[in-house]
Amino acid sequence: MGKTYLFAPGPTPIPPKVLLAMAKPIIHHRIPQFRMLFKGVLEDLKYVFQTQQPVIVLASSGTGAMEAAVSNLLSPGDKALVVRGGKFGERWAEICKAYGVDPVNIDVEWGKAVDTGLVEEAFEAHPQAKVLMWQASETSTGVRHPTKELAALCQQYGALSVVDGITAIGVFDVPMDEWGLDVVVSGSQKAFMLPPGLAFIAMGERAWEMVQGGRCPRYYFDLEKERKSQEKGDGAYTPAVSMIMGLRASLDLIKDEGLEEVFARHALLARATRESMKALGLELLAPGSPSDAVTAIKVPPGIDGTAMISTLRDKYGITIAGGQSQLKGKIFRISHMGYVSKADILLVVGMVEVVLRELGYAVDLGKGVGRAEGILFSE
Amino acid sequence: MGKTYLFAPGPTPIPPKVLLAMAKPIIHHRIPQFRMLFKGVLEDLKYVFQTQQPVIVLASSGTGAMEAAVSNLLSPGDKALVVRGGKFGERWAEICKAYGVDPVNIDVEWGKAVDTGLVEEAFEAHPQAKVLMWQASETSTGVRHPTKELAALCQQYGALSVVDGITAIGVFDVPMDEWGLDVVVSGSQKAFMLPPGLAFIAMGERAWEMVQGGRCPRYYFDLEKERKSQEKGDGAYTPAVSMIMGLRASLDLIKDEGLEEVFARHALLARATRESMKALGLELLAPGSPSDAVTAIKVPPGIDGTAMISTLRDKYGITIAGGQSQLKGKIFRISHMGYVSKADILLVVGMVEVVLRELGYAVDLGKGVGRAEGILFSE
Repeated sequence: MGKTYLFAPGPTPIPPKVLLAMAKPIIHHRIPQFRMLFKGVLEDLKYVFQTQQPVIVLASSGTGAMEAAVSNLLSPGDKALVVRGGKFGERWAEICKAYGVDPVNIDVEWGKAVDTGLVEEAFEAHPQAKVLMWQASETSTGVRHPTKELAALCQQYGALSVVDGITAIGVFDVPMDEWGLDVVVSGSQKAFMLPPGLAFIAMGERAWEMVQGGRCPRYYFDLEKERKSQEKGDGAYTPAVSMIMGLRASLDLIKDEGLEEVFARHALLARATRESMKALGLELLAPGSPSDAVTAIKVPPGIDGTAMISTLRDKYGITIAGGQSQLKGKIFRISHMGYVSKADILLVVGMVEVVLRELGYAVDLGKGVGRAEGILFSE
Repeated sequence: MGKTYLFAPGPTPIPPKVLLAMAKPIIHHRIPQFRMLFKGVLEDLKYVFQTQQPVIVLASSGTGAMEAAVSNLLSPGDKALVVRGGKFGERWAEICKAYGVDPVNIDVEWGKAVDTGLVEEAFEAHPQAKVLMWQASETSTGVRHPTKELAALCQQYGALSVVDGITAIGVFDVPMDEWGLDVVVSGSQKAFMLPPGLAFIAMGERAWEMVQGGRCPRYYFDLEKERKSQEKGDGAYTPAVSMIMGLRASLDLIKDEGLEEVFARHALLARATRESMKALGLELLAPGSPSDAVTAIKVPPGIDGTAMISTLRDKYGITIAGGQSQLKGKIFRISHMGYVSKADILLVVGMVEVVLRELGYAVDLGKGVGRAEGILFSE
């Protein structure tokens, strides 16, 4: 039969409406029809980012927008505080290094949220730090960092807040303007329910001012140039037209549901996933501060984590994610981002039960699913 | 009725097979099924680039791959000879400047191919130049530069050849290995018949060696990192999965037709377009060395070039392109790249006749179309 199901934290499943929008005949980008479409999309992105600031669309994966933040805001020799509690925290530091920016790493055990006390200490020790960079949701560990508190610290110490919201925007509440975030980055293949290939970056006034002084080289990711061009519904270079046609459709879905409902849905699915895993006797990697985007679960002792993931995929057509880097083989991750329904959660929890039993873990079949049902449908 | 037709030099029309391939449910990129797909695509890209060297796929528009060539090969202070005979020649120079590379511009009248004598002089005057950069096909003017001869000059003077083949690869013969080209760049939304969003860069051994010494910052466009990752069917960052699914379908179309047939088709359509315009008494911008990708035609005296393009588009649903920068309003451009048939050429030539007459140009209706028919179907 070959039917497959996708529960990886990006790409996430794409709604048929979005797929069909992208399958429409392509149009040229330098015509009024596209400019109108693009302007509308840029306006609605502000709604999702909860900002009045411009959101810039780049034809790249999310990492491109992270790089744009570094190369546009900072200069060689600048100091940047980096919350490093997973693969994507490491990425901030790597990008800084590539541009000669000096990252001061605030190392956090993978699976834990950053302790704001440590961030305060780092600010005290490095008062010249220009930015603090972190993940609102660290995809590799399923952790939610305390973005509101970190933003307040940035304001206190006069540094800019630079937030990777790739698996946070459209998942849970990160009100950019209300919390005074300076830079927020996201990508298409997560809560936006699109294929990978678009990145987003929203920046506030302080950030746009800082761009004026940034001395790192940039061309394709020149945000000032893009902003001026996109204001007119253009793009400095050929925009990813089909993806933007798809984005129109996905923004319609998000607007129709309403942002609060979208957040509530993610929160509910995430809680049901976490509780179902606990009902099976499994341990969460990030019980203290879990992200509603993706749940990371420890592979139980004696079970081969790699075999678990490949059995789900190759035997049953279910794609979940494993651990990355130091967590390889040690965790499995179930995404509930974007186009995922309550019923989908029963499916994936059920199949995890089936495969864990196959691999020798003692499972009370249906126990996890039952717990999920209780949360999803009875409360 | 609202039926529309696309004759702009990118994005070009997308075959239904390719649209449908991209509309399939998306898959995760870190699974064997995707790795196998990606490896096959990378192998077949070598066929289209006519090279044994690796072709790297980037999630960006073509400009991203141009930037990658500069930021990976060169260092601040390096000298680069740049053939500047159009908007995209200017782009090479702009990217160099953004990275502190010193461009030595070989300025060429827009509409003319570069005089190889001038390039020789530039090499003599700047023996320390590390690269020569040019467009195999300058999209803004419809000019084909003498790539084979320029490659030979590069070898003679010990510089690397860096070729923008964005509207050349898959259009006409640019045999990378046979001509000893060091770097060739292309993009998805031209002869590859895909939406914008993928860029390609193929590099030979000398270029990969030069990358080792390149001191410009790069991260998202780090080619060495991508090469090592893509060898395994991975990508350093999330690849544009749907686009690569579409690329599989478009490469199948190209392989089924055969590269020589693809080139012959483009040559025939281009010649028919040029001759039909001449039959209408119009003047080509680049009669001396026209590109088979796109034909640039001078707007006849007394006719409003902007009105011509908007009438074709808004009244008749036909998108052609105007001139860019200094050629704005002075030329119109008809693309015959990618998914364009002989019959399509009759359609666009016929509609150009209709609109030119509407705007007051004396047209012998059917004369251009008749000339095209003779070339396309009788010879």
